[in-house]
Amino acid sequence: MSAFRVEVRVMPRAALLDPQGLAVEHALHALGFGEVAQVRMGKHLVLEVKAATRNEALARARAMCDRLLANPVTEDYDVVVGGGAAR
Amino acid sequence: MSAFRVEVRVMPRAALLDPQGLAVEHALHALGFGEVAQVRMGKHLVLEVKAATRNEALARARAMCDRLLANPVTEDYDVVVGGGAAR
Repeated sequence: MSAFRVEVRVMPRAALLDPQGLAVEHALHALGFGEVAQVRMGKHLVLEVKAATRNEALARARAMCDRLLANPVTEDYDVVVGGGAAR
Repeated sequence: MSAFRVEVRVMPRAALLDPQGLAVEHALHALGFGEVAQVRMGKHLVLEVKAATRNEALARARAMCDRLLANPVTEDYDVVVGGGAAR
């Protein structure tokens, strides 16, 4: 059994309006950052997942995204499994 | 002038309590994902920044983090500048 560091990025789908990103974009413009556009804002999670193999850690992390971390209608997610420290 | 795709990750500092991450961790345990621990939750932003060079885009994105995107007391950030499409 190892503990794998898993990084999950959850972003609003490209086709959907992203009100949070829009609010940040407007605030940046108001602060003088006129060169910024197309701001999208999502979540970044770092988890430690105990699993026998890297593939098992990836599969469990994907299940967590499907069940809780991402909204399947409005969000897309990426999962990256990093190094496993032997336990 | 090119438009660079910039990715910004803002995470709560390691030494600080992360109530959002803790709430997610408890919810995952309640859903049967007992193998997860050390959940930290932050923000992921994707921006398009117009700049003459990649280094200028990086500097401007860092300035945006210092001014608005990250809380310098409680959060750390990483900035990655991706490809620039010539304009």
